[in-house]
Formats: sequence, structure tokens, C-alpha cells
Amino acid sequence: MTAALSGSKLSELFEASRSGNRGALARLLSLVERGGAEGRELARLTFKTAGSAYAIGFTGAPGSGKSTLTSAVVAGIRSRLSSPVAVLAVDPSSPVTGGAILGDRVRMQQHALDDAVFIRSMASRGHLGGLAAAVPEAVRLLDATGWPLVIVETVGVGQVEIDVAAMCDTVVVVVNPGWGDSVQANKAGLLEIADVLVINKADRPGAKEAARDLRLMLQLSRDLQWTPPIVETVATTGDGVAELWDAITSHRYYLEQGGHLASRRAKRAKEETVRIARRRLDTALGAALKGAANAEVLAALSDKRMDPDEAADRLVSAVALELRDAAGPAPS
Amino acid sequence: MTAALSGSKLSELFEASRSGNRGALARLLSLVERGGAEGRELARLTFKTAGSAYAIGFTGAPGSGKSTLTSAVVAGIRSRLSSPVAVLAVDPSSPVTGGAILGDRVRMQQHALDDAVFIRSMASRGHLGGLAAAVPEAVRLLDATGWPLVIVETVGVGQVEIDVAAMCDTVVVVVNPGWGDSVQANKAGLLEIADVLVINKADRPGAKEAARDLRLMLQLSRDLQWTPPIVETVATTGDGVAELWDAITSHRYYLEQGGHLASRRAKRAKEETVRIARRRLDTALGAALKGAANAEVLAALSDKRMDPDEAADRLVSAVALELRDAAGPAPS
Repeated sequence: MTAALSGSKLSELFEASRSGNRGALARLLSLVERGGAEGRELARLTFKTAGSAYAIGFTGAPGSGKSTLTSAVVAGIRSRLSSPVAVLAVDPSSPVTGGAILGDRVRMQQHALDDAVFIRSMASRGHLGGLAAAVPEAVRLLDATGWPLVIVETVGVGQVEIDVAAMCDTVVVVVNPGWGDSVQANKAGLLEIADVLVINKADRPGAKEAARDLRLMLQLSRDLQWTPPIVETVATTGDGVAELWDAITSHRYYLEQGGHLASRRAKRAKEETVRIARRRLDTALGAALKGAANAEVLAALSDKRMDPDEAADRLVSAVALELRDAAGPAPS
Repeated sequence: MTAALSGSKLSELFEASRSGNRGALARLLSLVERGGAEGRELARLTFKTAGSAYAIGFTGAPGSGKSTLTSAVVAGIRSRLSSPVAVLAVDPSSPVTGGAILGDRVRMQQHALDDAVFIRSMASRGHLGGLAAAVPEAVRLLDATGWPLVIVETVGVGQVEIDVAAMCDTVVVVVNPGWGDSVQANKAGLLEIADVLVINKADRPGAKEAARDLRLMLQLSRDLQWTPPIVETVATTGDGVAELWDAITSHRYYLEQGGHLASRRAKRAKEETVRIARRRLDTALGAALKGAANAEVLAALSDKRMDPDEAADRLVSAVALELRDAAGPAPS
């Protein structure tokens, strides 16, 4: 395990990362992933300087070909724009990988020798809320260290992954012909966050029907200025990938005109704040539940000296104490 | 709307309810449903005296025939045991009905003239968490006013409804042949809380396969002393209803032997406490988000004078203040 880093060492690593030192960047990303005091210090450092990069989220059911599609988009960015691009592959169900590239991301390995492509996987670190907090911080770190495009790819379509993808500037939702059955539960949630819809494996039967269904669902469920375009792709052959990039770029232009991007990012920052606050309240509740006072409360509860309502009052008072101790004096 | 009731008036209504006055009981249930100071006072009153009634939860997908089955079970209780029985029909998706019997509960109307059957529906009152809090309090009120058996029937299988059913002593999960498709998302959650499994409409094709599937899933997912029996019923003809009641009774005996019932209820009381505490924390967070301090925080966030982490700290401090103000002085 890494020993604690001083503030000046942090700045040193940060400067090295800005000059293209990938080892330094990887080390900083580990700090972000780990959270704690250093991660927090770093998050503070990057927040002020970040804001010029553009973040694109890719989400969709496992097996939809997201990873192949992401790789094809990266190849397109490299050949058409010559822009550097960073990819964060987010998998809340995996154990922590220590930052290694996921072994099965074979398609991504075509970029392994390209210095202008940085690929990093992030996995769950204990509490799921931790991942949702770490990803936007990681995006800001990549932003602040000079990566103008950041792609966040989620492995599945659980709620955490939908939340993570929704933090990006443009959210690409990848489905397949006949997709309805595989993502039953989160269909509404997926459509709600989509800025661009992709029907990948569009050479399979049912692509036209899927497009028609999606168009219908969008009409029913949305009342927005921006109507998500529906792009058909075959990631394995590259068909439609240029059109997908055009759709992403159109959405970016839409956001950048009329201040949509700034208001969207302000809304995201607020949501991030509330999420962090809620997690701290939960942590304080967890600590109160482990405290000695709570053992008394539980005993009183089972003896019927106290009802759940009174017991909850006591618990909330203990949380208030926890918060006071954790936060120092309240602002006057 | 009812004017505020004094404590002595509450006790009066409580005594009247104990003597069989259904109007008084309905009025008290409305207070429980509404929450607030009177509901809280009442909950405190009933908690001390409750504990002798037995609560049975019925849950399952809409259309599974739960309502018909519940009615048939009530008829069985009345004819075989001559015991009074109360039914709470819980529907989080409906607007508040003011305590009227749901209009479509045609099957239940066969009990409308039976003084030993009390039927009441509870619907969502604003926040969903409110319903999960109100139901156990309503069950305790029925318990304390002399109803020895309380059946809680949920209308659907959303998470709130699963939570509500899981608060009961015996949880009956109702499915149909071919049920897998209709409750996709909550299949695991339903199996986890089931003490008794019912395949209703068992005269339809697929009943044997459903039973086999359920048995397999139980083997895979459970490692408990109690294995949920699987009962096949046809609620419309009454087939299997006596066997269902026997299965419920067996589970009750199992719980009452060896202290399982007491420990289960203690666990439920603890969960109820944590749920109430979490709701109060959420309310305090909501209040902090509306406060003047938060407007400043949001402005600082969008000016980048503050990052989400610092902003969350400020928010949490505001919550701590809210809690202190709400709870009075912390216990020493």
C-alpha cells in the first residue's frame, strides 16, 4: 500500500500527470478511487481547473456490444480528430482491480500502444455510493490533467451505472434489436437519461422494429427541446460509427448553444453534492447504530419501554452528535 | 377535517374501539394514517398494549388473485375458528381514500355484514415512506383494540409493498402458473420474504412446473430452518384454501416454538426504528436544501469557489442544525 502523500507530493504528481506522465496519473486515479483525505485534497485541486473537457457516457445491457462500440468510437476520434481521449470503464459488480485494464476488454487493446489514449477501469470499493462519488472526481482529474475527451463506459445497467452515466455531458444508451426483454426493469430509466440512442448489432433481425418502438416511447415519455437521435450501428464492422459520432457532436453543439451545458453541469454538481451529503448522513447513522447508546435503545425497544418512534428520536439525536463531532462547529 | 383531539379524547376513542365501536376505530386509524402529533401519541399508547395479535401478510403481483384468496382465507377463519379478523388492504399507488373500502374489492363485500370482520384500505399519503411507517402502527392499533388476527394485503409487488408485507409474522407470497414473467424484477425479493408460497389459479396449465421451479429456487437461495411450503390453490372455488391456512398455522407454531417469534419481532422493531430515523434524516436534508444557507452553497458551487465535497460538508452542517432544532438538546 502507498504511504500517505504530502500536499507538495500531490502537486508534483499532478504536474507530472499534466505533462503526460501516465504512471503519475494512474497513481492519482488510485487516490481518487480510494477516497480519504488525499483523494479529497486532490478533488479540491482538480475542481478549480477542470471544466474544459467533454464527458460522454456509454451505458446499456451487458452483451449489447458497448465495449466494442466504445473502442470503435475511440478509433474514430483518433483518426478523424487526432484528439487525445481517456476511457473510464466502470464496473460496480467487480472487485477492485487496482486500476488494471479489465482482462476481457480485448477490443480496447488495439489502443494499448497509443499514447494519446488512456484507459482505466474503476470497480466498486465497498459501498456502491463510493463509486458514484469517485467517477465524477476521476473525470475531473482527467479533465484537469489535459484530456479533452473522456468516455465513461458502464458495464451493466444497474441503478448505480445509470447514475454514473447520467453524470456525463452526453449520454449514449446502447440497445440491440429485441432489447426490451433483457433490460425490463430499467427501460424507463435508460430512456430518461439517453441523449443519443444506439441500436447496435443492427444487422440482426428486428432493428427496424426496435427503432420504431424507441421512437414511439420517446414521443410518449419526453417533452424536451432535444429529441435523442436513434443511430443504427454494427460495431464489429464499423458501420454507423461515424454517424454515432456525428450524433454525439450534434448534442454537444446543442448543449453549448444557449447555455444548456453550463446549466446541465450546475445541476449535476448539485446532484453530486446531495449524493455526498446523503452518504455522510448514512455513514453517521451507521455509526450511531453501532454506538453504545443504541444498544440501550434496542434493549428499551424489546422491553417495550420505548416505541420505534421514540427509539428513532434517540437514534437521530445520536446522529446529530456524530455529525457535530465530524463537522466541527456549525457555521454561524 | 377533524379538529385536534386532546389526550383524554384519544383514550376515550381507544376505549370505545376496544368495546367494538367500529366508527371510533376507523377514526383512530385515520389518525395513524395521517401521522402527526396525535398519530404519534396513539402509536405510543398502542405499542405498550399490543403484542398478542398475529399478523399475516399477503403479497404478489396484481392479477394473481390475492384479493379473492384473502377473502377466502377470511371466510375460512370465520367458519373454522370463529375468530374475529381485521384486514388492511395496502395500496401505495392509489390516492388517499379516506379509509373507504376500495370499490373493486367485490370479493370482500361478502364480509361486509359480519361484525367480527373489519376491513380497511390504506393508501399512500404523499411520501411513500409514510405508508411503510403507518402500516405497522395500524397493525398495533388493531392488535391493541382486540383483533387477534390481522391480515395485511398489498395490491402490488413494488419495494414498499414487499417491505410492508415483510413486517408481518407470516408472509404469504402469491404467484400463478407462469408467474416468472410478470414479476421479473422482484422475484428474488419476493422469494426472500416468503414464509408460505401459494400457486393460485393452480387449475391452469403450468402449475406443476411453477411448483418445481419454486422448489429449485428455494433450494438455491435459502439456508434456513424453515422451508416455505408451496400450496396450490384455486381461490375462486376454495380449493386448497384449507391447506393454505394449515401452512400458515404451521409457520406460526414454528415461530412460537423456541423464541423465533420474539426475535423476529425484535428484529422488525429495530428495522422500523431505522426506517423512521432514516426518514427523519431525509426530511432534515430536504429542509436544509430549501434553506437560505443552501442557496449560498449552490452559488459558490457554480462559481467554483466550492467543490461538491465542501458543499456537502456545509449541507451536512445545516442538517445537523435542523436535527438539533427538531430534537431539542442531545441526551447527555
